[in-house]
Parts: sequence; structure tokens; C-alpha cells
Amino acid sequence: MSEKVVKIAVDAMGGDYAPGEIVKGAIQAAREQGVEVVLVGSEELLKKALTQTLSLQGRGQGEGENVGIVNANEVIKEGESPVAALRLKPDASILVSTRMVKEGKADAVVSMGYTGAVMVAAIEILGKLEGIKRPSAGGLLCRFAPNTLVFDMGANADCKPRDLLVFAVIGSVVCRKILNVSNPTVALLSNGAEEGKGNLLVKKAYPLFKQSHLNFIGNVEGNDIPFARANVIVCDGFTGNILLKFCEGLGEALVERLKITLDRQLPREQIESITNNLFALTHTAEEGGPILGIDGVVVIGHGRSKAPQVANAINMAKISVESNLVEELKTELGRELK
Amino acid sequence: MSEKVVKIAVDAMGGDYAPGEIVKGAIQAAREQGVEVVLVGSEELLKKALTQTLSLQGRGQGEGENVGIVNANEVIKEGESPVAALRLKPDASILVSTRMVKEGKADAVVSMGYTGAVMVAAIEILGKLEGIKRPSAGGLLCRFAPNTLVFDMGANADCKPRDLLVFAVIGSVVCRKILNVSNPTVALLSNGAEEGKGNLLVKKAYPLFKQSHLNFIGNVEGNDIPFARANVIVCDGFTGNILLKFCEGLGEALVERLKITLDRQLPREQIESITNNLFALTHTAEEGGPILGIDGVVVIGHGRSKAPQVANAINMAKISVESNLVEELKTELGRELK
Repeated sequence: MSEKVVKIAVDAMGGDYAPGEIVKGAIQAAREQGVEVVLVGSEELLKKALTQTLSLQGRGQGEGENVGIVNANEVIKEGESPVAALRLKPDASILVSTRMVKEGKADAVVSMGYTGAVMVAAIEILGKLEGIKRPSAGGLLCRFAPNTLVFDMGANADCKPRDLLVFAVIGSVVCRKILNVSNPTVALLSNGAEEGKGNLLVKKAYPLFKQSHLNFIGNVEGNDIPFARANVIVCDGFTGNILLKFCEGLGEALVERLKITLDRQLPREQIESITNNLFALTHTAEEGGPILGIDGVVVIGHGRSKAPQVANAINMAKISVESNLVEELKTELGRELK
Repeated sequence: MSEKVVKIAVDAMGGDYAPGEIVKGAIQAAREQGVEVVLVGSEELLKKALTQTLSLQGRGQGEGENVGIVNANEVIKEGESPVAALRLKPDASILVSTRMVKEGKADAVVSMGYTGAVMVAAIEILGKLEGIKRPSAGGLLCRFAPNTLVFDMGANADCKPRDLLVFAVIGSVVCRKILNVSNPTVALLSNGAEEGKGNLLVKKAYPLFKQSHLNFIGNVEGNDIPFARANVIVCDGFTGNILLKFCEGLGEALVERLKITLDRQLPREQIESITNNLFALTHTAEEGGPILGIDGVVVIGHGRSKAPQVANAINMAKISVESNLVEELKTELGRELK
């Protein structure tokens, strides 16, 4: 752990509940996590939101809070072309926040804003790590296996065997640094457990995984995911994305069915609690996390985040900074891809 | 509906409970479905099993039952090379049964035996339909959407756009003929609903689907499957197989969790009934079904089938014969692939 206070630039204008809930979450994080937060956005609005939140909490502005403000006059909204906005709105909050990291004025950036814009800002301003074609979107697929990450579940629909190796390296580093799993097991997701099973992509990736420094345990199948048969389960982003959404859909369908089945058998609040729990077990995408493969710490949170989720995202950024996630990724990618 | 009595050759030596449960299921089917069943296997064993079952039911052999026996002296067992067995055990029950269909002595064959052997027998003796590279394994992915079939979930791991079109045609015909859906909707499974989303395979298949005679409604996503957003959902067999097994695994994990959550909240039998129901909703592979793409009706059932499942498999064969499934497949494949 670093002794230095981690400084986090928060895009205070991004997200459905910006800036109010972002400001609240930032104050909470600064208090509870011992981080320094810089809110980036309209100075006028942010001062107002800060004063309001603190006075509701019975405090004066700045009173013991490690929360500052940096002005940014524009916002990139959902649906705009992020690439065009990069030129047309240089003073947008996400761009100002990301530049603070590039210039060493902050250790990380956190945004609940338009994902496309956060992604483009990260790639264009901070750059990708060597060997990365596109940043990776992996993480928990379902909460039955809290130490099992699936990579990729996002943008990388068509993959080469080497891309799968990159996902495996990223997943292993995240598993060690964020989940504190010391020697994470890695598996290829396939349609059969034996070596030689799989589509062409998996068959070609298998020997690469075997020769790597990864703790590779072979192929796993779809039913192995909820039973945590490996810490890092690797697949192309097309398969991963379909699985993630199928998990959500199946969870919803089960919850609907269970509500009908349990109706009048148990008290309403108890049914509510059981089904909410099952829903949460099958819905992980709401969490957000660091964009992986970027030369800097950028955490994207869900647009619907309220203060507690904002504080969580800030905490994720703090852990990523303190664990040297990006440096470790550089080292491990360098080692495997040379 | 044909007036003619459908005659079904049943491989009575295949399956974990052969021949006892196969014989029982065959008798049940002959009685309830008005089909003629020919049990194929060791004449001695089958006569004994028939007599035993009927006497337990208080009847003499042959008394009103439309169940015959054809002798076959060998059995192909799980783990044997099916291709080698084709030469080395010409008198194996599955081969004798399948040849009866080829020679017009039966309308369909049903087996609970070793899938590899049933498949090879079907391909080698009956042959594949024109345009079929490998028989297709599709069907229900989960029971939330009883009129939604996913094709392929089996052997076709690496697909070309044209293969997906074949799956769509097969799925549509099965949907019409077996599920009685009159104009089944067809969708491509993708990582985004909009046209242009998907991996290269889906992107290339999209225009083929658009130009086809299929009732194509575009892309659907993973969460659309349990909500029946299309009748036929098409993907490569690698993705489909992983989804099928993930569905089973997630179902098991949910059932385990729910048993713990509901413990002592409801009577034990009620918990049992709720969790058994959820298990069944997420486990469809046990059902078996016709091998699709073969020039004849061949129904594979699960190895663990007992009499009721055997009778179901025979019923599936009967429906396939009476609905002219194979002729319809030939016609539709010819129309789309020309």
C-alpha cells in the first residue's frame, strides 16, 4: 500500500443523477476511503451541489472534506459521436478529467457518463498498452462464483488466438490485484473439457496457453462457470457478451416465475428479499470497473449509479492505483507477448 | 395425419435401463399412441422382458399388443469406435434397426443407446440430406420459452454463413411440424440487436437471412432467449453448446441456493417441488429428439431414459413420420440452398 493519498478526478457531469449523486458519492468516498477527490464539471453547479449536500449533513463547505473542484464547461452526451466531441468539445468534463491523469494531476479518473465517450477519451488521451487491440471488458458473469472472472464480455467480437492470451493475462492480473487470488487458475471456455475440443479459435489458443506463464488448467464448459472451476475463464467477446446477457435474461425469467410460485406461500417482504437476491446473483453488469488495457486507471460506472455506487467506483479506482494494476499489466503483457 | 399405422423400430439394447425399461416404454407407446413397435435386440432377452412386463400387468404375451421382435445379436457400447463397429458388428441392434428404415421395413428408428453409434448409423445407412454437412442438434434451450428453439447446440462448432441458413431452415421446419407454429419467426443470436452488430459470421449471415424465404426478424440478444423473442434462434454450435450447458449450470447453482434460502421457511416437500420445477426449466437436454438432416426419422433419447421417456421418444418419432418432417426438410432446404 502506498502512503501517498490517492487523488481521483471524478467526471461530475456524467451519469443519470449528475451532479447531485456524484457529489454525494465523492464526499462519502473522501471520508471513508481517505482519498482526495477532484470533482470536474461546471464550477457553479458543483459548488452549489457541494454546499447543499454538506449543509444537509450539518457541515460547512470544505470542512474537513478532501474534495476539490476543477471547472469544465461542457458535457459529452449519450448519442453524440465521441470522436467528433473530442475535437468539438475540448472542455468537456470527461476530457478534462482524463487529461488530469495524463498530466499527472490525478492518479485515476472515474465516470458514470456516456461509456463511448469515456472509452474514446481513455484511448485517445491515455493510450492503449502495448499488445492491446481494443480495451477489454471482463468481470463477473454471475455472483455464484465471486472469484471467477470471464474475459472478454464486450467489444472484441472477432478474436485471434493471441487476443485470447491477452484476455487471460489481463484476467489473471485483475484476479491477483483486485480479488487477491494469489495464483489464479486460467481456463479456455469450450464445448468440451478435453484438449482438442473447441472451435478453431480455442484449438489454436490451447497450445499458446500451455506454453505461457499462466496457471492454465485446460478447457472448461458452460456449466463450470457458476461452479468456479477456474478463476479466469477466457472466451471471445461475442460468446462472452451473449452469455452475460443470457444470464441476466434467465435470472429475470426465474425471478418472475418464482414470484408467482411463492405468492401467498411466504410473506410478501420475504419473497421480495429472496427474488431480489436471485436477481442480484444474475446481474453483474451494473457494477462497472476499470477499463483494462489503457495506460492509466479509468473506471466506468453505470449511468444509473447513485452515491453508494459512485463511492464504490471511486474505491475501485483507489484499489487499482494502490495495487499498481497498470504497471503489473504492462509487465505481464510484455512477458507473454514477447 | 396418415391413416396408416406408423411402424417404429426400437433399438431395445441401447440405454442404461435396456432392455427392461425400453420394452415397458414400447408397450406403453403401442397401447397409447396406436403405433406398431418392433423391438430390435437379443430375441431371448426381449421375449423374457416382454413376458415379464405383460404378466406383471396381468396379461399374456402378444395379447392385443402391437409389439414385435426382430433379432440382433450384438450391441455397440459407449466408448467403442462407431465407425469401426459398423464393420465389425454388422448385427448390432442399432444397425439392424436403422437398416429396417432404409429397407422400408420401419418408418422410424428410436434409440436410447450410445449417441455416437446412433449418429454414425444414421449417416452411413440413411445418408444426409442435400446441403447438410453435419446433422444438427437444436431444440429447447430452456423451458421458459416452449416455442423457442435454438439451432445449433451441438456438433457444428465452426460455421459458415450458409450453415447458419441451414440451421434456420431446419429450425423453421421443426417449429412448424413438431411445435405447430404456423409462421415461425427466425432471428440471429448476436451481441447487439441492430443490423450490423455481431461477429463476422453473423454479419455475413444477415443478408443471406434477409434474402431468404424465412420469416427473419433480425438479431436478438442473449436475454431475449428466455423471453421468446423469436421461435428459431440461430447460432453456431460452439456458442449454442456453451449456452445450453451454462443454462444447466446456472439452474443447478440457483436450485442449490434456493434450497438453502427456503430451508425451514416452507415444508420440505414444497421446497422439493419448487426446486425440481426450476431444475426442469433449465435442463432440456434430457429430452432427446430427432437427428435433423438425415434422410429418415432417427430419434435419440437420453441414456438414462425410463419407460415414460422411451414412450415420449417413440411419440416424437411418430409425430416426425406423420408430419412428413423429412420430406418437408428436403423441400425447404432445396428451396433455400438453390
